[in-house]
Amino acid sequence: MTTFLPPNFSDPRFASLPDARFAPAPADGVLPEGFFSTSNLPTFAKIKGKWTAPRDPRMDAGLLLDKDGVLWVREGRRLRKGDMIAIGSAEDGTEGLFVQTELVPHEVGAEFSFMTSEVSREKPIDYSTMARLLLEERDRGGYPIWVTGPALVHSRARADMSWFIANGFVGALLAGNAVAVHDIEASVYGTTLGMTSTGEITRGGHGAHMRAINQVRAAGSIASAVERGIIKDGIMYSCVTCKVPFVLTGSIRDDGPLPDVITDMLVAQDAMRQHTMKATMAIMIATALHAIATGNMLPAFTALPDGTMRELPTICVDASEFVVSKLKDRGTHQAFGVVTNAQDFMHILRLYVEREIALRTPGAGTPVVREAAAKR
Amino acid sequence: MTTFLPPNFSDPRFASLPDARFAPAPADGVLPEGFFSTSNLPTFAKIKGKWTAPRDPRMDAGLLLDKDGVLWVREGRRLRKGDMIAIGSAEDGTEGLFVQTELVPHEVGAEFSFMTSEVSREKPIDYSTMARLLLEERDRGGYPIWVTGPALVHSRARADMSWFIANGFVGALLAGNAVAVHDIEASVYGTTLGMTSTGEITRGGHGAHMRAINQVRAAGSIASAVERGIIKDGIMYSCVTCKVPFVLTGSIRDDGPLPDVITDMLVAQDAMRQHTMKATMAIMIATALHAIATGNMLPAFTALPDGTMRELPTICVDASEFVVSKLKDRGTHQAFGVVTNAQDFMHILRLYVEREIALRTPGAGTPVVREAAAKR
Amino acid sequence: MTTFLPPNFSDPRFASLPDARFAPAPADGVLPEGFFSTSNLPTFAKIKGKWTAPRDPRMDAGLLLDKDGVLWVREGRRLRKGDMIAIGSAEDGTEGLFVQTELVPHEVGAEFSFMTSEVSREKPIDYSTMARLLLEERDRGGYPIWVTGPALVHSRARADMSWFIANGFVGALLAGNAVAVHDIEASVYGTTLGMTSTGEITRGGHGAHMRAINQVRAAGSIASAVERGIIKDGIMYSCVTCKVPFVLTGSIRDDGPLPDVITDMLVAQDAMRQHTMKATMAIMIATALHAIATGNMLPAFTALPDGTMRELPTICVDASEFVVSKLKDRGTHQAFGVVTNAQDFMHILRLYVEREIALRTPGAGTPVVREAAAKR
Amino acid sequence: MTTFLPPNFSDPRFASLPDARFAPAPADGVLPEGFFSTSNLPTFAKIKGKWTAPRDPRMDAGLLLDKDGVLWVREGRRLRKGDMIAIGSAEDGTEGLFVQTELVPHEVGAEFSFMTSEVSREKPIDYSTMARLLLEERDRGGYPIWVTGPALVHSRARADMSWFIANGFVGALLAGNAVAVHDIEASVYGTTLGMTSTGEITRGGHGAHMRAINQVRAAGSIASAVERGIIKDGIMYSCVTCKVPFVLTGSIRDDGPLPDVITDMLVAQDAMRQHTMKATMAIMIATALHAIATGNMLPAFTALPDGTMRELPTICVDASEFVVSKLKDRGTHQAFGVVTNAQDFMHILRLYVEREIALRTPGAGTPVVREAAAKR
Repeated sequence: MTTFLPPNFSDPRFASLPDARFAPAPADGVLPEGFFSTSNLPTFAKIKGKWTAPRDPRMDAGLLLDKDGVLWVREGRRLRKGDMIAIGSAEDGTEGLFVQTELVPHEVGAEFSFMTSEVSREKPIDYSTMARLLLEERDRGGYPIWVTGPALVHSRARADMSWFIANGFVGALLAGNAVAVHDIEASVYGTTLGMTSTGEITRGGHGAHMRAINQVRAAGSIASAVERGIIKDGIMYSCVTCKVPFVLTGSIRDDGPLPDVITDMLVAQDAMRQHTMKATMAIMIATALHAIATGNMLPAFTALPDGTMRELPTICVDASEFVVSKLKDRGTHQAFGVVTNAQDFMHILRLYVEREIALRTPGAGTPVVREAAAKR
Repeated sequence: MTTFLPPNFSDPRFASLPDARFAPAPADGVLPEGFFSTSNLPTFAKIKGKWTAPRDPRMDAGLLLDKDGVLWVREGRRLRKGDMIAIGSAEDGTEGLFVQTELVPHEVGAEFSFMTSEVSREKPIDYSTMARLLLEERDRGGYPIWVTGPALVHSRARADMSWFIANGFVGALLAGNAVAVHDIEASVYGTTLGMTSTGEITRGGHGAHMRAINQVRAAGSIASAVERGIIKDGIMYSCVTCKVPFVLTGSIRDDGPLPDVITDMLVAQDAMRQHTMKATMAIMIATALHAIATGNMLPAFTALPDGTMRELPTICVDASEFVVSKLKDRGTHQAFGVVTNAQDFMHILRLYVEREIALRTPGAGTPVVREAAAKR
Repeated sequence: MTTFLPPNFSDPRFASLPDARFAPAPADGVLPEGFFSTSNLPTFAKIKGKWTAPRDPRMDAGLLLDKDGVLWVREGRRLRKGDMIAIGSAEDGTEGLFVQTELVPHEVGAEFSFMTSEVSREKPIDYSTMARLLLEERDRGGYPIWVTGPALVHSRARADMSWFIANGFVGALLAGNAVAVHDIEASVYGTTLGMTSTGEITRGGHGAHMRAINQVRAAGSIASAVERGIIKDGIMYSCVTCKVPFVLTGSIRDDGPLPDVITDMLVAQDAMRQHTMKATMAIMIATALHAIATGNMLPAFTALPDGTMRELPTICVDASEFVVSKLKDRGTHQAFGVVTNAQDFMHILRLYVEREIALRTPGAGTPVVREAAAKR
Repeated sequence: MTTFLPPNFSDPRFASLPDARFAPAPADGVLPEGFFSTSNLPTFAKIKGKWTAPRDPRMDAGLLLDKDGVLWVREGRRLRKGDMIAIGSAEDGTEGLFVQTELVPHEVGAEFSFMTSEVSREKPIDYSTMARLLLEERDRGGYPIWVTGPALVHSRARADMSWFIANGFVGALLAGNAVAVHDIEASVYGTTLGMTSTGEITRGGHGAHMRAINQVRAAGSIASAVERGIIKDGIMYSCVTCKVPFVLTGSIRDDGPLPDVITDMLVAQDAMRQHTMKATMAIMIATALHAIATGNMLPAFTALPDGTMRELPTICVDASEFVVSKLKDRGTHQAFGVVTNAQDFMHILRLYVEREIALRTPGAGTPVVREAAAKR
């Protein structure tokens, strides 16, 4: 446990600092304009030249100097009109108020703050920036790799993923057997693991994914099944028809597997690495296994043509904070976490990319969309 | 949504059942020994040979027969000594009390199936149905209550929530102090808990919410702060300007609180219940506390004008399965769970409602949107 | 635990049902059109008028009738062209195929109740029952398989896992490369991924797991590294010295891997299945991937010597409800979920087993422990 | 996104650094002793006086210098015997190998590391330290406050919590209505929300908590219900009989409430703060609401008698990382997170405290326990 001494107020640097200022509460339960808002850290006010710690410390309150010269931390709601309250916002003593930051985690900048966690469902998601990044990558011929788990397919983001593939935003798709199986099951039977696109369970549906796999095995490959008209739409269909490379790597829980799946992990890692070596951006969605696998092989940086280097943009989307933290704990510190549902992420990201494209297209007739984008 | 008819009490099996028994409350706020504890399901008591449904249904209360022979669901704490309360524990009519169990979850069918869990991030979210439900409620003058937690504000769904308020989709807003505080902080300072809308921490930002609260306390009320131009946009602004009622209930973790917050929980529950009694739909977003509180007071059903009954549509949105399961474990079985981020949910739900409106507007010049909607 | 009898096939309703139909596999590794897709429930095919249960039951496979008239559950990929495979989708016997649904979850009873969710951190964990089950399995020569993820090792449950291995509670250990790597890193360097047993990060520690792997690769195998004194304690050490079989299956995220890891997934699945076919109990801890893989291969039932059948006890321990729900959503409905930390689970389970042993040992001098156990 | 320049190798400080050393791989697939283990950061080796970046960067691999003098990052498994591999562990150039740390989050010490997240279910839980802290607090007359949520009661940690109260480890208990309601329901009826201690649902059990509340309301207070023999054991019983103060604060979701519950939030905050002002330690278990409420009122530090200050030990136990992160995001940065189940936490913590007491008691006759403790 951290232990420390109170500030050495005999140090000359404290001598020149002014006394704290106080102003009266304008009404019962109301703090004066410019009041000093407390934190839970050791706090001192200079009163008649003497640095004094208030009694009853807590955060989110004011500093009250009572008639006997005693200093208290006091909630605003408990004030009486005329109570003398410390004024100021600087915490470095320059307004007579000093906060000791020994207990502040160093990264946040030695100041008491809220909302400092790295990954949280409570953080806003900046879709505009992600949309611009994707367009920049496409414009400059970058190589964004997309790494996805099966929840993307169960949650019915197939159409949106296909759109990104068809519109040039995907350098390569890295996934497992299950993503392709459920995508193909959805194309052939309209279900994933027997569940319809509105979440109902179908009778006898538990065999649908096995029948889908079997059809592709009979056809010999996914490309061949596309050619024969067995697979008519979706993620794998778009990869095949748009000639976007994909790597399907096996896992111990695979059904089938599909004929395109690389079942030996060493061969599979070598195949994936051919793409991570070229990657200029990575988008990982709803998969712990493949995200960490990709992170293991991915440099945290990329060299730009002008000789500068920059962080390799790495977006990790998951429904729980844990997967993103785990990815970082395995060394992929550059990952930017988005805590949301795969279906919603894909839908909104596409919307923002479409808006950005519309805004960049002079004369393109989509005023409604442009207005909507402008208003945001 | 499940619809069903009230029990056919002309059926002979009901004829032989006895009248319900009632006993007096032994003291103010105390139920008699052996009292019948209510659920949120349709409930009937046989009184003088006639099966009667009580007014103001909710779970965890007693059945009070007043002097005029009217039957009420009434919380124990609101009783007066001598109030006549139904006695019994059987729910099958054998003690004159009958509970209709059409809404109790049934098994999936004795067949092996995948994806049978009730709540999962892997289930598709059916925004179309939710958008249609909201429009139907608006069209027929329903009373949808919205129950929200502060993550909605941190994640910057303020604009979308304001849109729903301004466009007639909100019967009442039920929330806590924090939702209003952060919404107002965002309006006044552009931050929530000192965090900007793109997730950065501001220097000294930890005091911003306290300053926002203090300004409203000085103004006397949220409405007054809107009038004086202190609050210029957002959720509370829209409620005030669109005259949508809101109930802000206090909690032990509140800062401030804002002057509109009801700090006594019994008064606050009574205020909330005025709205749950009128509710024809409930949308609960990113709050365990307020969702469960609302669920406690909300019947699982609603009577339609034609005499049929239907499940009261109850949508519960949270980033984790746990909150939805917990809500169900507290008896709100009818809740439909959506596992996603509050920001994304609000954004897409609004988009679908806008599309649906466009589709229903003959001649309205939004072909782009209509095509997009048609293609999905 | 649910116990039940096989169907009474002497019942007249079975007499009129037809024999099962079989069709030849059209190619190696391809099932015939219309194949019957298996579940993990007791399944019977009528062959020459006699209802027969297949050998080696598992879900997601076909039913193969070999030349000797023996019926097998066989994965599609393992078929040879011409193999005779059962055809049909009805599970009620009308196509000669009957599935017993005693183990399919039933509703809670048409009554309003709280706490009806299947998996929740709010449910009590019944360690007594689990301890008794483990002892019963040991006493009757059962074959409990343990399936673990690396969190078990990071969280320092190594000593407890080793105790279970050394004391005869583990039939086989099924895990991935990471479990063994971190266990060995802990034995050789005292860290896991460079983190000490009290959670501190060590300087340069990020290379420790690679050095541990390299030493075992140089030694040629884990057993050889134990023999040479490189690995001195822990899970793998205990498996080797106590001759408990283990299967380490590869994954796309593996470092190294260790020489014992089976890198081809089809070979690895076959190796795992040798153990799931013998399993009489399954304990899955802190792993989604391996738990689902095992669940895929594991029948939901086990036949007891007296001809009755019972649910195969399947315990799934994870820090989140999601993993257990996902396992059930993949068809392992019999899984009993324990929502807790791997370290704590192992510690308490061992304690309860030790107490149970002490209680069963007449005259054994552990009165303190016996009193403690008695009081609970 | 962070952008940066490669190191300025013309800087004189680089001139004096030695060339990197290389050693041959002793066998196919085996790295030489002392190999340099790569990270995902920009890395440079000094070769013949020139700093060179390897091709194909990734973490967890070696640096191979091929016959043509080209430097590669290469996985150990892909090596051939005799391949020349860089040797060293320093990343500051002193062994001819330099890693650029611009992308390392600053708090971890400007070095690539794994497992740097603050809160994770994968971190070991240090029960020994917590047990010692609790004993120290008791010995020196500290004032540890315990803050708990209802999951503690549902999960049946009542007996362990009672033990801590009875044995002098609890200065005050801060909780809500639900904790007391379910504790009392368990004492009176053996259930919590109608669920038994092994997790079964009882018929008609949904009324049990209402009946328990009603009995206490009839008695007038919890203390009076204890006196009358209505409440016979558990947390509230122990508080009453051991004269440990408790504060029960209301919330909007309360049933009843119990007569001791403070329903006005401002009064309730003032009551809680009487205890947070005296607190020398805080243990928060399975509650977001009350943990954040307490954190709001709790200084992050405590002054020791000798004039030094130390961090106020604050332990936050929850089943999910999110609650602990949220508490920190609300400014309680000093909170130490334990991600586990409330039942298990209480059980093991008590066990460690009992062991520690046994170890400190000379001659106390608990050799079994002492041995067990010694072996760990």
